[in-house]
Amino acid sequence: MRTVGIDLGGTKCLAVAFESGKVVDERRVPTPVGEAAVLDALSGVAVAVIDGAEVSGVGVGVPGLVDRGGVLRFAPNLPGVVDLAIRSELETRLGVPVRVDNDATCAVWGERQVGAAQGYDNVILVTLGTGIGGGIVAGGRLLRGANGFAGEIGHMVVDPEGPPCPCGQRGCWERYASGGGLGRLARQAVAEGRGARVLALAGGDPALVRGEHVTDAAAGGDSEAQAVLAELGWWVALGLANLANAFDPQAFVLGGGLVEAGDLLLAPVRAAFDGLLTGGSYRPSIDIVPATLGEHAGAIGAACLFDVGREI
Amino acid sequence: MRTVGIDLGGTKCLAVAFESGKVVDERRVPTPVGEAAVLDALSGVAVAVIDGAEVSGVGVGVPGLVDRGGVLRFAPNLPGVVDLAIRSELETRLGVPVRVDNDATCAVWGERQVGAAQGYDNVILVTLGTGIGGGIVAGGRLLRGANGFAGEIGHMVVDPEGPPCPCGQRGCWERYASGGGLGRLARQAVAEGRGARVLALAGGDPALVRGEHVTDAAAGGDSEAQAVLAELGWWVALGLANLANAFDPQAFVLGGGLVEAGDLLLAPVRAAFDGLLTGGSYRPSIDIVPATLGEHAGAIGAACLFDVGREI
Repeated sequence: MRTVGIDLGGTKCLAVAFESGKVVDERRVPTPVGEAAVLDALSGVAVAVIDGAEVSGVGVGVPGLVDRGGVLRFAPNLPGVVDLAIRSELETRLGVPVRVDNDATCAVWGERQVGAAQGYDNVILVTLGTGIGGGIVAGGRLLRGANGFAGEIGHMVVDPEGPPCPCGQRGCWERYASGGGLGRLARQAVAEGRGARVLALAGGDPALVRGEHVTDAAAGGDSEAQAVLAELGWWVALGLANLANAFDPQAFVLGGGLVEAGDLLLAPVRAAFDGLLTGGSYRPSIDIVPATLGEHAGAIGAACLFDVGREI
Repeated sequence: MRTVGIDLGGTKCLAVAFESGKVVDERRVPTPVGEAAVLDALSGVAVAVIDGAEVSGVGVGVPGLVDRGGVLRFAPNLPGVVDLAIRSELETRLGVPVRVDNDATCAVWGERQVGAAQGYDNVILVTLGTGIGGGIVAGGRLLRGANGFAGEIGHMVVDPEGPPCPCGQRGCWERYASGGGLGRLARQAVAEGRGARVLALAGGDPALVRGEHVTDAAAGGDSEAQAVLAELGWWVALGLANLANAFDPQAFVLGGGLVEAGDLLLAPVRAAFDGLLTGGSYRPSIDIVPATLGEHAGAIGAACLFDVGREI
């Protein structure tokens, strides 16, 4: 039967209709501001992709801390949204069961069911975008934690004297291993005279250097830019090793915009990771693979919250 | 029915007979050197506490990476022990089912079943001793990971430019938040003139300052030593916050020798933790409580590997 999955993001809201393991329809709208408008947008895209069909449920992935009752408690990227009872509000409007989970939790479930994480019972999805998100499957089940807040891995502090993070701490992993972190590494390289091509792509102004200038230059064969990507890869690997020591996964699936750099990023990540993992030579190797569902992972995973008979 | 639990440590091997939720007998021997001698010691203490009774099984907690088949793969504190098939060897010798798990995994299960972690379905035991060990219960089940290696939280890197760790990395959490870390903080305090009493307890030689001089001085009311313990507490809290962001537990149970400092350590840990946790004001508070089973936690937990009907 058809299920619906919605990925509520900071800028857009993407809904898919999902049937027999495939996306059969999709719809997207800009994410509006304000709680009432967000609920209207969610029910609007849901109705659009339900399209009169019978559906077994609607799953929603949301960018923040969501509790087990489907209330979005804290969403730094959705201004004005606090303690929004998405599950009960949508169930009332749509008349079907609704499940709400963290967007990265949904994304790992999507990759696990129909994407790059298929076949892994212990796997962590790490999304390397503007920040870092995480979704965890342990023992074949979603790891949600006591309140559904598990997987906030981007705010693992990896250097207490590092750069300040909007979260209030210093040296969070996502200050280093995200798109923003890449920009910082690039500006540092440029300041040290190791980024002529990157600087040229930024129009010659060191202050305008961004992560995408590095990935563009690296894709074009620029060895200095590739070296900066390798530095980024080391920071990615550092956090993965920390997570591997704690969770002992079979694999990491890396998603998010940075992964579009492909092996220019993944090769240095893999090389650094093997050296950083405790007892690395005594344990089976851990796969590090790119995500395959792209921007649809969250919506597909939200739809897949209904695709198993047992609690996940 | 009686079960037996054995905690194989780097220096001693402690066995308990466990019945109706209580330790009814115990035996300890020094841990010998060499694989054959270790197996002899394990079967010897097991036979001693079985004492002719019928037992449903023998659980063994071991200090290292143990795979799902009960083979101890890597044990840095047991020289000469590599790839030791403890489970099959002991089953042959004892004629009863044997389960083998990591010692910290056993300890968290002991605390969960009969100690400080009772009632928590999402809880992490952190043992603060010479190093840092970890055991994790998520969703009411032991989190073992793909190979039974989960919970190696002491080697979470919290400062890539920090002091070198025997594991090969730099700045592992256990370089800061363990007994060794306390000694380092204390020597630094003494060098900066902030530890007269601590220095006196070390016989006046700064190089001989150890963690226990700090805990002794702090217990005696020395405010400079208490300040060093508070520094230690900040480092403990930093790692707990990293783990809380990833796992979303209801509680941390702190064990190991350092916890004997009581509230002189726990109060600064709790104070620092609340400030370090992402979105702290938007989530239920997380309990931080001392372990209650002391040195018996591992052995009791090993015995408890047999006390439930389902796989744990």
